[in-house]
Amino acid sequence: MKTYTVAVVGATGAVGQKMIETLEKRNFPVGKLKVLASKRSVGKTVTYKEKEYVVEEALPESFKGVDFALFSAGGSVSKELVPEAVKRGAVAIDNTSAFRMDPNVPLVVPEVNAHALKEHAGIIANPNCSTIQMMVALKPIYDVYGIEKIVVSTYQAVSGAGDKAIHELKTQTNEVLTEKEMTKQAFPHQIAFNVIPQIDVFEENGFTKEEMKMVNETHKILEDVSIEVTPTCVRVPVVFGHSESIYIETSKSYDLEKVKELLTKAPGIAVVDNPENKEYPMPVDAEGQYDTYVGRLRRDLFHENGLNMWVVSDNVLKGAALNAVQIAEELIK
Amino acid sequence: MKTYTVAVVGATGAVGQKMIETLEKRNFPVGKLKVLASKRSVGKTVTYKEKEYVVEEALPESFKGVDFALFSAGGSVSKELVPEAVKRGAVAIDNTSAFRMDPNVPLVVPEVNAHALKEHAGIIANPNCSTIQMMVALKPIYDVYGIEKIVVSTYQAVSGAGDKAIHELKTQTNEVLTEKEMTKQAFPHQIAFNVIPQIDVFEENGFTKEEMKMVNETHKILEDVSIEVTPTCVRVPVVFGHSESIYIETSKSYDLEKVKELLTKAPGIAVVDNPENKEYPMPVDAEGQYDTYVGRLRRDLFHENGLNMWVVSDNVLKGAALNAVQIAEELIK
Repeated sequence: MKTYTVAVVGATGAVGQKMIETLEKRNFPVGKLKVLASKRSVGKTVTYKEKEYVVEEALPESFKGVDFALFSAGGSVSKELVPEAVKRGAVAIDNTSAFRMDPNVPLVVPEVNAHALKEHAGIIANPNCSTIQMMVALKPIYDVYGIEKIVVSTYQAVSGAGDKAIHELKTQTNEVLTEKEMTKQAFPHQIAFNVIPQIDVFEENGFTKEEMKMVNETHKILEDVSIEVTPTCVRVPVVFGHSESIYIETSKSYDLEKVKELLTKAPGIAVVDNPENKEYPMPVDAEGQYDTYVGRLRRDLFHENGLNMWVVSDNVLKGAALNAVQIAEELIK
Repeated sequence: MKTYTVAVVGATGAVGQKMIETLEKRNFPVGKLKVLASKRSVGKTVTYKEKEYVVEEALPESFKGVDFALFSAGGSVSKELVPEAVKRGAVAIDNTSAFRMDPNVPLVVPEVNAHALKEHAGIIANPNCSTIQMMVALKPIYDVYGIEKIVVSTYQAVSGAGDKAIHELKTQTNEVLTEKEMTKQAFPHQIAFNVIPQIDVFEENGFTKEEMKMVNETHKILEDVSIEVTPTCVRVPVVFGHSESIYIETSKSYDLEKVKELLTKAPGIAVVDNPENKEYPMPVDAEGQYDTYVGRLRRDLFHENGLNMWVVSDNVLKGAALNAVQIAEELIK
């Protein structure tokens, strides 16, 4: 069997570690693994298939001989090193937002638009975590009925902001419970027992960058700029698993049972929708899972083509690491 | 000064205690206070103006001589005892859903529809907590521009489910942090570090009762059944303060600065909307406050009459206890 040299950049971060774990769990044909990170992580070790790998500094020459370079070390690292990796013959799969809107870079969710991979020129972008799970859930509906409007409110886990944020939620929660003085670093406000209606910075139009990603990336992935997307992105005190309350208006009238059937058959989706048994998607159940969970499917009370749903997925897996590995899998098919 | 005999039914509960505290803080002209509850709370004490009051069992005859009876002891208690209180000459202000949709019972948010109080026949209903804060925030806009559509997703605090739920969130959170076995009683699922997309039971149409309250109560309070309301109600691990992500479509085109001005001048609203300084409403800031906080006001990117906002209020105060006391204040004006 053909094997590949794979580099993971940002190997010690929340997503990087999951990338390595996912490569192992899905038995990706890794011949050689290179674990790279910034200078300050050099010397740390990560485990892959019961072997320890020492982290090396990510430098342009690190990518010599690399087939796939999975990047998740922040936008500025990607901007600098992704072109270096490509120059040396690697295919770069970038989890940051650095290249997502570049017209020459495919933005790919394999279940949704794997076809876009044919056009790549060395760089493939992994969409934003909130966009990925929404695309997985909406694509089967879009294909059959069309979608004119999306109003989405998110309930995003702190792990989307990295290891520091996970640590901060736990530390702060303990401080609040024991009435100690509260420490704050990863988030601008208390996150323990609170919700923060801001993710990433604000743009002039009053939307945050995270919200604009959901708009622009949806348009690019579905290749349809006519869809009206209205997002509100909110951080909640959850460790893993983003949830989304989604209202859509389809172009054609839909049949609710048919929608459930479409979603049940769709790749990467698990329908959990038995309200009579109090069964619906929740972050604690999605944690560590590959699927995107869809539930609370119900026809709007007023708009004939209105459809409501609740979508949950592990933001670090399908929202980042898993999606990147799936892209590599598609490329070697 | 004229004083009134006030009875609080459910005096030991989360809302009942806040009712007593609010009567004191707002200096309501209480002549005599009666603290009532179910049998199992008899003998407990509550404090009002530094004096201890012993809880008595709520019985039909308890309401003799009572001017205002504030009910917050559950729907079945209200169904049984509200008519008994009214029969004995009291005005019953009921925080449960028992009488809200009764056409003979005004459903009142004083800042929004105090005029409806003129029609009462002894019973006045306090709306659902999620509805109240949405009505406070939307009424000034409705009056000037009209509202055709509301899509709302809630982030509701556990205190809406009572003292047991507050206790459960804290206990469970500690159990998760210390990796102990998790106990569960108030909620059907883990609430610590999780979100639950169910509040109250499900109806046949796939919406929960809590969601249907937001639809029906909005129609009744604004006296306008033409408004399309699409709610998704979600419990989050927050102790006090409900948050709402609201998207509306106005009937007439609006001016965003004028909307901010209208809201700033409106009673019961505090506009907190300085994204450049990371200032927006959050539950930890709303806790213990009387105002409904509105922020993240922004014009929709696609729909000219689309308007997005983020609304937070203390669910136990404006969402329950304060609103009830304000109704009594209106009645003695």
